[in-house]
Amino acid sequence: MNGAETLVQTLLASGIRVCFANPGTSEMHFVAALDRHPEMRCILCLFEGGVSGAADGYFRMSGEVAATLLHLAPGFGNAFANLHNARKAQSGVLNIMGDHADYHLRFEAPLKGDTVGVSQAVSHWTRVVSEPGRVASDAADAVQAARAKNGQIATLILPANMAWDPAEGHAVAPPPPLLRRPLPDEIAAAARALRQPGAVLLVDGPVLWSDLGLLAKRLTKAAGARLMQPFFVSRFRRGTGAVKIERMAYRTPENQNLLKGAPALVLCGTSRPAGFFAYPGLPSTPDDPDTRLIDLCSADMDIGWTLQALAEELGEAELGPEDFVTLDLPALPEGDLTLTKVGEAVAALMPDNAVVVDEGISASYYLAPGLKRARGHDALTITGGSIGFGLPNAVGAAVACPDRKVVVLEGDGSGMYTLQSLWTMAREGLDVTVVIFANRGYQILRDELAAVGVREVGRNISRMFGPRGTAWPGCGLLTWRGSMRLLPRRWRSVAPV
Amino acid sequence: MNGAETLVQTLLASGIRVCFANPGTSEMHFVAALDRHPEMRCILCLFEGGVSGAADGYFRMSGEVAATLLHLAPGFGNAFANLHNARKAQSGVLNIMGDHADYHLRFEAPLKGDTVGVSQAVSHWTRVVSEPGRVASDAADAVQAARAKNGQIATLILPANMAWDPAEGHAVAPPPPLLRRPLPDEIAAAARALRQPGAVLLVDGPVLWSDLGLLAKRLTKAAGARLMQPFFVSRFRRGTGAVKIERMAYRTPENQNLLKGAPALVLCGTSRPAGFFAYPGLPSTPDDPDTRLIDLCSADMDIGWTLQALAEELGEAELGPEDFVTLDLPALPEGDLTLTKVGEAVAALMPDNAVVVDEGISASYYLAPGLKRARGHDALTITGGSIGFGLPNAVGAAVACPDRKVVVLEGDGSGMYTLQSLWTMAREGLDVTVVIFANRGYQILRDELAAVGVREVGRNISRMFGPRGTAWPGCGLLTWRGSMRLLPRRWRSVAPV
Repeated sequence: MNGAETLVQTLLASGIRVCFANPGTSEMHFVAALDRHPEMRCILCLFEGGVSGAADGYFRMSGEVAATLLHLAPGFGNAFANLHNARKAQSGVLNIMGDHADYHLRFEAPLKGDTVGVSQAVSHWTRVVSEPGRVASDAADAVQAARAKNGQIATLILPANMAWDPAEGHAVAPPPPLLRRPLPDEIAAAARALRQPGAVLLVDGPVLWSDLGLLAKRLTKAAGARLMQPFFVSRFRRGTGAVKIERMAYRTPENQNLLKGAPALVLCGTSRPAGFFAYPGLPSTPDDPDTRLIDLCSADMDIGWTLQALAEELGEAELGPEDFVTLDLPALPEGDLTLTKVGEAVAALMPDNAVVVDEGISASYYLAPGLKRARGHDALTITGGSIGFGLPNAVGAAVACPDRKVVVLEGDGSGMYTLQSLWTMAREGLDVTVVIFANRGYQILRDELAAVGVREVGRNISRMFGPRGTAWPGCGLLTWRGSMRLLPRRWRSVAPV
Repeated sequence: MNGAETLVQTLLASGIRVCFANPGTSEMHFVAALDRHPEMRCILCLFEGGVSGAADGYFRMSGEVAATLLHLAPGFGNAFANLHNARKAQSGVLNIMGDHADYHLRFEAPLKGDTVGVSQAVSHWTRVVSEPGRVASDAADAVQAARAKNGQIATLILPANMAWDPAEGHAVAPPPPLLRRPLPDEIAAAARALRQPGAVLLVDGPVLWSDLGLLAKRLTKAAGARLMQPFFVSRFRRGTGAVKIERMAYRTPENQNLLKGAPALVLCGTSRPAGFFAYPGLPSTPDDPDTRLIDLCSADMDIGWTLQALAEELGEAELGPEDFVTLDLPALPEGDLTLTKVGEAVAALMPDNAVVVDEGISASYYLAPGLKRARGHDALTITGGSIGFGLPNAVGAAVACPDRKVVVLEGDGSGMYTLQSLWTMAREGLDVTVVIFANRGYQILRDELAAVGVREVGRNISRMFGPRGTAWPGCGLLTWRGSMRLLPRRWRSVAPV
């Protein structure tokens, strides 16, 4: 028995059942140990960004931590962007990063790199195993860290000799530490603030897809407050049957209008809204300067307890049909292909309780009106702003929810970052339908360039934003995967795969 | 005029002519400034790993630093792996990483990340611009840093408001500082050591492709010493006309045999050889325990001066035909398709002075005998061991050498990491021929698993190493790009694109 074997046994004993993997040479003993335990489901991704994005999507839809198997420093670098997105989604991810045998690190082997440095730049928790006999307990600590504070990025660095040297036994991850809660006075003050007409309760986390949403709705209804959610979130319920929660917008001026005149903005499961970027002449935050901001419960605190405590102060109103999105399926559209009609077509045909991974970026704006009218579904959005999250997240969501249809709405620019995930979808036989919106350029950059006041576009801009020099034509080529046929026949004919 | 404009003017005034780019929203003013200067060649890559790998290849073939344009933290993360390879190749790369406006960083915007941390994990030099008026001088310092010590990774982080705020003037990068040289006593001791029969001079850097190779050959011939090079190097000359330099092997036992009994191993432009990985029971380094190791001149020191100083001690022997590789083109092979024959076919048909980017990994071993017999060419190898270097490096090499044929020998596993570079090759009309060796699995991992003593292979290993459960079949599907037709017609028919 060696350290790698104790690691796999510890992961299994701690409830880890899935390992998204892109192994390299320094992980061979870990790989051999995984091979002895077919009860761990190992899923190969052909690029580490696919690994980390899949672990993110898996956590978003299952609430369970998956392990990743990543190659030392540069392999982890490839996973970095989707770990960033996972971090911003408050997803728990357990990375196992291989490394050289510790005694080999004083020589300049090609793959020697700053494993700790690159990990710490995105992980909440990083540890290097220093004794083979501690692999098990370190792994248990890592699992606990990944589950702590509602979900963290935890990275365990495993030098090759810690994996291959003899070790015995396994450990079990202790439960995550209790979540921090607001003080009673803070609850009381927030409740008083929410009773003011026009006050807003801004919620995120499981409130947006679990029964906590009902609780939040009942207490804000009792208080007469507005219930809102950020624009980019890990997961939210949308379509028929969803609790009505106002969604904030992408751009700061729209959010300034939404929040204008609110006497109080109470945060529960989120932090103060901020612009996606700063722009000259615009504030960083959209809240009204006269609004009282109450940072009641951050994303890593006890959100459920906090809502319950608020409800005890404010009471809970009965909910009626007006508090839920009612069935309003759009008809199958006809005529010229537009993005709005694609949104309607997806909504009309999407089965109940689907998972929609939305990385349409500039297209998403036009798709949203249709999708709001779809059957009830979970929507996952790009929390960290680093494109390339969509296809990998869909892999993880489909692994977590094998009985649900997963639909990815994907920009062509975004899709190019992590298109290797298409292979994993096919290989694992995942029920994923991918829609690519091919405007053949970075349309969002054209929009952003206009937003910072640049009007002239010359050779270098047109060379850096994509092959087209022209503006967004309003629709694009659609490429289809999977079994669901969303498009009317006529569109399919103009949009060959 | 704003900070971004002073940045572009500084880059141009400092001799930077190419910018490999994957811009994001936080770089819009930099993008706009680039657009006003069409004399800067901006080349779009659809993924940041393509950007950094192209800058690496560009430096390897031109000796000139290219700029990269990278999005804040996670975008740089995507570039990380090929920056690692560039660092190990001693390539100079100047990264311009955007960031939020500095005053926006106290809020939790989606893309906020540890820009400094992720940069420092791979860059030799990192600086955040802190005043718009210092963009120009900071950029000049960054160019100097990228050129210093024979080539470094330099990263300038440009908060958006430093780019958009008013600024005037530009700066010019000072020349890089003088390179450090060995002391006279060290030269004399190394020269004495090289006079011992069987002593080895191990060289790297420009010695492998410039006239310094002639000098190294003359002085080792005069001393009666062996002249050797590491296995993985930034660039080396191969084929007809190349100076004969013994190439070390991939695996430690082979290198132990190569170096056995050498009384001295003198390092010039490189560091002590180390195993690609450590293996149980094998030493980390292949040099004979009885060999005297002389660390004369590291990769960041004055290699040319050092060789000249050695030559002054040892003299320079006349070189004859026996010191160069003579023309020995293989015939066009016939019969069944094998990797060895592919190497011979490429060698037989490759034009003079091509650039071969070799990321064939497990296939490369079989290709090498043929390629040694090709017309004279430069070969680029995977210095940092992080796969996905080949296609991006070929982009940079082709931009640097528009009049030379670039051939990429690419494993299918490696190619999947950065296949977005195929798009840039096509868009820029680069003369690149890509050969994909599709064994449909990570064959190198099968080899490495055997190397660590694992013989049984079960479900999880076969799921993580690729779709096939079988061993390497000896040949693979070949996919072709570009104008050169290397394959005999019969093979082309079995290898449709």
